[in-house]
Amino acid sequence: MVNFNTSEVIEILGTIAFSISGTFTAMQRRLDPFGVLIIAFVTSIGGGTVRDLLIGDTPVAWMRDTQICAIILVTALIAMFFKTQVKKLRITLFLFDSLGLGFFTMLGLLKGLAFGLNPSMCIVLGTITGCFGGVIRDTLLNRIPLIFRKEIYATACILGGMLYFLLLALNVESVFAKVFAITFIFALRIVVVKYKLSLPKFNF
Amino acid sequence: MVNFNTSEVIEILGTIAFSISGTFTAMQRRLDPFGVLIIAFVTSIGGGTVRDLLIGDTPVAWMRDTQICAIILVTALIAMFFKTQVKKLRITLFLFDSLGLGFFTMLGLLKGLAFGLNPSMCIVLGTITGCFGGVIRDTLLNRIPLIFRKEIYATACILGGMLYFLLLALNVESVFAKVFAITFIFALRIVVVKYKLSLPKFNF
Amino acid sequence: MVNFNTSEVIEILGTIAFSISGTFTAMQRRLDPFGVLIIAFVTSIGGGTVRDLLIGDTPVAWMRDTQICAIILVTALIAMFFKTQVKKLRITLFLFDSLGLGFFTMLGLLKGLAFGLNPSMCIVLGTITGCFGGVIRDTLLNRIPLIFRKEIYATACILGGMLYFLLLALNVESVFAKVFAITFIFALRIVVVKYKLSLPKFNF
Repeated sequence: MVNFNTSEVIEILGTIAFSISGTFTAMQRRLDPFGVLIIAFVTSIGGGTVRDLLIGDTPVAWMRDTQICAIILVTALIAMFFKTQVKKLRITLFLFDSLGLGFFTMLGLLKGLAFGLNPSMCIVLGTITGCFGGVIRDTLLNRIPLIFRKEIYATACILGGMLYFLLLALNVESVFAKVFAITFIFALRIVVVKYKLSLPKFNF
Repeated sequence: MVNFNTSEVIEILGTIAFSISGTFTAMQRRLDPFGVLIIAFVTSIGGGTVRDLLIGDTPVAWMRDTQICAIILVTALIAMFFKTQVKKLRITLFLFDSLGLGFFTMLGLLKGLAFGLNPSMCIVLGTITGCFGGVIRDTLLNRIPLIFRKEIYATACILGGMLYFLLLALNVESVFAKVFAITFIFALRIVVVKYKLSLPKFNF
Repeated sequence: MVNFNTSEVIEILGTIAFSISGTFTAMQRRLDPFGVLIIAFVTSIGGGTVRDLLIGDTPVAWMRDTQICAIILVTALIAMFFKTQVKKLRITLFLFDSLGLGFFTMLGLLKGLAFGLNPSMCIVLGTITGCFGGVIRDTLLNRIPLIFRKEIYATACILGGMLYFLLLALNVESVFAKVFAITFIFALRIVVVKYKLSLPKFNF
């Protein structure tokens, strides 16, 4: 399930989901079509870009991968033109978005390992890869980033990353540890949203 | 027209225009003089900085080029002290700003080629070079970036970049392709503003 | 006073102060605990991160220094749980914050020298190291960064950096020049806040 081809497929599905999520958010703010495309793009590749900048792996990934850019562009255009139909797929989109979150987190974590960072930094890098697209999107749209206000979005990434290293320490095979961690992030996010769980806010 | 000296002159004029544009925007938000200088600086060098970070050409350009920093500083100080007179030059400024947009876009595009990126990525890099100074300025000033809301600012850069590669494919000499593309961006921006053209917004 | 161990101690104290400052600001905006941690983290390491990205020293410093991350985390957690007591230490915190500002500015300036930048760029890099954690914090929290609106915060960094190079030019020994410059930034910031000095705003 996590051999190269499958991972590519899930990365593409995650990218599509993030692109649609960005497109919808931007249309709700009444941007013009170009602005919508930029926001779709930023939501999809923002996390990986911040990751690559922080570890110094430049040119950043999407600059070397025209395919991903084409996918984002086509997805965003389709979402713009068929917005009514796409809105009905809300639950499907949410599932892809959550799966994308899990997979992007794992991709970032593995890239951290490849760059010789220690496990806690790899978890941070994975979380950044999964979440910072949304952070940049919200900052550009002039609102406090959603992950700072709602749901334990990023917490799911952190716990999933910890689970991965825990499983490795328990001698679980690498490929299963990956599948478990991705599934855990995916499932935790769904449970949290379904039961409207969130961390308590501060009363300062 | 695009030999080294002329290109330097136009880069300087573009930098001056962007610096004045940043100064005025910041003064309208009632920042203190230091804040105004920072915003002038960010508007002028923001696009090139993001470009250099994304392709990994560090230290970024302005850190190695004291002359550009001095030009921004002096321009911003003059704009602050002679604000009444400078405001009368509104149309002149707009022309410089548009010329700067065209030239910065071409500079970014050529840098992308020098780093071995494919044409579509070079166009993206050119657009970022031309537009992201304004994006960062607006984000810091806590408003949705202008290019996401108005005019086909960035679209002009993209079309200009496409024109450049189209002309090259038609065997037009490189120097003429550059001049045509820069002029096209310059002219398109002026036409768009003059006739108040803009992409339709979304009603979501 | 500025040998390696003392400088480490002051860097740690500065990091603690910035972490607490970030924690308090985030709690006032009613973020959830995870958001508060992120803001504490960003406030503490934002300046150094921007510095390292601009000069291309990647992976950025905090990714190679787990100790600093642990300090930020523990400090932020303590500040969250003992918020009433910590608030009483307001003046102590302000002193640490000002000392941290001086020291971070000097660290950035010295790193610029080590990368062969000229003195004016070193001063800019020092100012960025001292101030940009707060800029990113304010941008994420959706308000115009404090340093653009109030106090001559960044101006203190710039003047301190100039003083350092002036003292070197006067053949003052390097170690004393550092102590003088750090103390100057520290003292200037306190005087400015105590007497509510600020640069005049623009009436545009």
